[in-house]
Amino acid sequence: MEKRIIITGYGVVAKEFCKLLLNHSESIKNMYGFHPKVTGIIGTKGMLYEAEGISLDKLMNYDVGSNAITQYAEEKNIFLVPPKWNGDVLVECTPTDIETGEPGLSYILNAIEAGMAIVSASKGALVHSFKRIKEAARKKGVSMKFSGATAAALPTMDIGGYSLAGATITRIEGILNGTTNFILTTMTDNNLSFDEALKVAQMKGIAERNTSLDVKGYDSAGKILLLTNGLLETSFSLNDIQIEGIEHVTKEKINEAQEKNERIKLLASVILKNEHLSLEVRPRNIPPSNPLYYVNGSNKGIVFETQEMGTVCVTGGASHPRGAAAAVLKDVINLYRRDL
Amino acid sequence: MEKRIIITGYGVVAKEFCKLLLNHSESIKNMYGFHPKVTGIIGTKGMLYEAEGISLDKLMNYDVGSNAITQYAEEKNIFLVPPKWNGDVLVECTPTDIETGEPGLSYILNAIEAGMAIVSASKGALVHSFKRIKEAARKKGVSMKFSGATAAALPTMDIGGYSLAGATITRIEGILNGTTNFILTTMTDNNLSFDEALKVAQMKGIAERNTSLDVKGYDSAGKILLLTNGLLETSFSLNDIQIEGIEHVTKEKINEAQEKNERIKLLASVILKNEHLSLEVRPRNIPPSNPLYYVNGSNKGIVFETQEMGTVCVTGGASHPRGAAAAVLKDVINLYRRDL
Repeated sequence: MEKRIIITGYGVVAKEFCKLLLNHSESIKNMYGFHPKVTGIIGTKGMLYEAEGISLDKLMNYDVGSNAITQYAEEKNIFLVPPKWNGDVLVECTPTDIETGEPGLSYILNAIEAGMAIVSASKGALVHSFKRIKEAARKKGVSMKFSGATAAALPTMDIGGYSLAGATITRIEGILNGTTNFILTTMTDNNLSFDEALKVAQMKGIAERNTSLDVKGYDSAGKILLLTNGLLETSFSLNDIQIEGIEHVTKEKINEAQEKNERIKLLASVILKNEHLSLEVRPRNIPPSNPLYYVNGSNKGIVFETQEMGTVCVTGGASHPRGAAAAVLKDVINLYRRDL
Repeated sequence: MEKRIIITGYGVVAKEFCKLLLNHSESIKNMYGFHPKVTGIIGTKGMLYEAEGISLDKLMNYDVGSNAITQYAEEKNIFLVPPKWNGDVLVECTPTDIETGEPGLSYILNAIEAGMAIVSASKGALVHSFKRIKEAARKKGVSMKFSGATAAALPTMDIGGYSLAGATITRIEGILNGTTNFILTTMTDNNLSFDEALKVAQMKGIAERNTSLDVKGYDSAGKILLLTNGLLETSFSLNDIQIEGIEHVTKEKINEAQEKNERIKLLASVILKNEHLSLEVRPRNIPPSNPLYYVNGSNKGIVFETQEMGTVCVTGGASHPRGAAAAVLKDVINLYRRDL
């Protein structure tokens, strides 16, 4: 059984995904009973399309972005074409833009309309228009997965939706952003101010130059939003979340916390109380009895509280592009595997 | 779509499973698209069988064991019958006996022969005869799940098989037995000898009177065996595992560890090295950089190291019968759900 993959956006994650497919496609066929094949990659200059499957080994000779696609097309002596949606699954890897959701949003809606399943590594479209996308997918009866948009190699959607299937989730609480956790840990361990720790993060390449989405809590908010909507069948938007970032966490607050043997963490949470869900992102003091206390540096972690299965905590997961790509591949496998 | 469940063994886990079904069957139908129905329960005195489904609310009026089944049958004015295997899935809940695998082994083989899927809460048959069961299941094309036998509410098989699908697992290392972890923690925190800490565990009802399976490491060994065989497509048996329990851990060793800021944990592990897998269970000193350092008391935890997705650690999960029952229900849901 062949499954045709169309990729939108060809950045580092998409390239790593192609590399994983190149190395693992034989074992995927043997273990999971289907054969994944990339038939199209859509970039800003058009779509690279080969019905027989793009030669991923040749593609690896080029860098990333639309230039790489163009160079590959030139080598193969083919033309880029306008996007077409004749695959089995869309792997959405365009850069996240939560203001407009584009270009991912249009890509996703087009693919759903054509009956394709969706695996999204990108948060933008989902955070911007979850309800619209979900309804379109339901109407067409297509599946949708987005591990890559919800902490990637740290399994969050999987735990909530698969490992806790049938259980009643009463609280989800996570450190979902590695950059802010690194900054808070650096402030704590080295007695630095926020600005000083931010500079360390930037020097180490952990924080990007434009860190406001991370620092102001919007990245964490987007993730807890998707987890809540995905796991608890809701249709919240960013406006429904109380968001506070870490930019006002001072040395003094960190010291106060340490004196009480606590640590300050940027927690994204959703709590079920009296059949009402409340979502928030804010810096909170947590004690050593909370397993997230031990999640430091640029690591991430999440805790699920349930009525039937107690509390389950997951930490770790690689935060590099290869980890994100592996999370995308995992979603594709779990859509089509025949061994469960 | 109806799915007929036949349960073997009616102890506390089986009863909790019936209670969960009673309370959740409507929501399972709505969320996952199938309707679970218990049509048979097999105990030592025979099988309670009702094609239209056993009245779980009435069944809750009785205790556990074959007596409960008999009392229910008398109330309903029906007779117990010899076992028949005409369900969709077997939920195996008989007591674990790793010496013979029985009675679970015969039950499982009969059910597979009849084309039923297997969800096992019990370790005995699987530890005793994994290869035989697996081959029978493969031959008949039936699915097999055993979260309940591999740390239950702590997701272990799920993480390895679903969340890390497509990734290369290079090491699995876990604290898979709550009783021994409680004893080691109690020795550490209260400066007690092994015998003293064991007595505390027995007084608290955490250790049973016959603790040798736990204390000598066989329970942990059974779990790492099932995880390895289930996740890495192997056919190891208990004889392939180097097993050392905690009965020779002394106060002195605990103190030495503490002086180095380490803790002694009973770790069950499988390591991939040069394409060779080695399995072992033994007390090991671990430093604070290992996330299992923080798994104390009767808690459990597991770490997966992968090539593509980094290190993922899961801790927690209720250890009471309801948690185990919820793990069984989760497996049943994941066999038949239509929403993925």
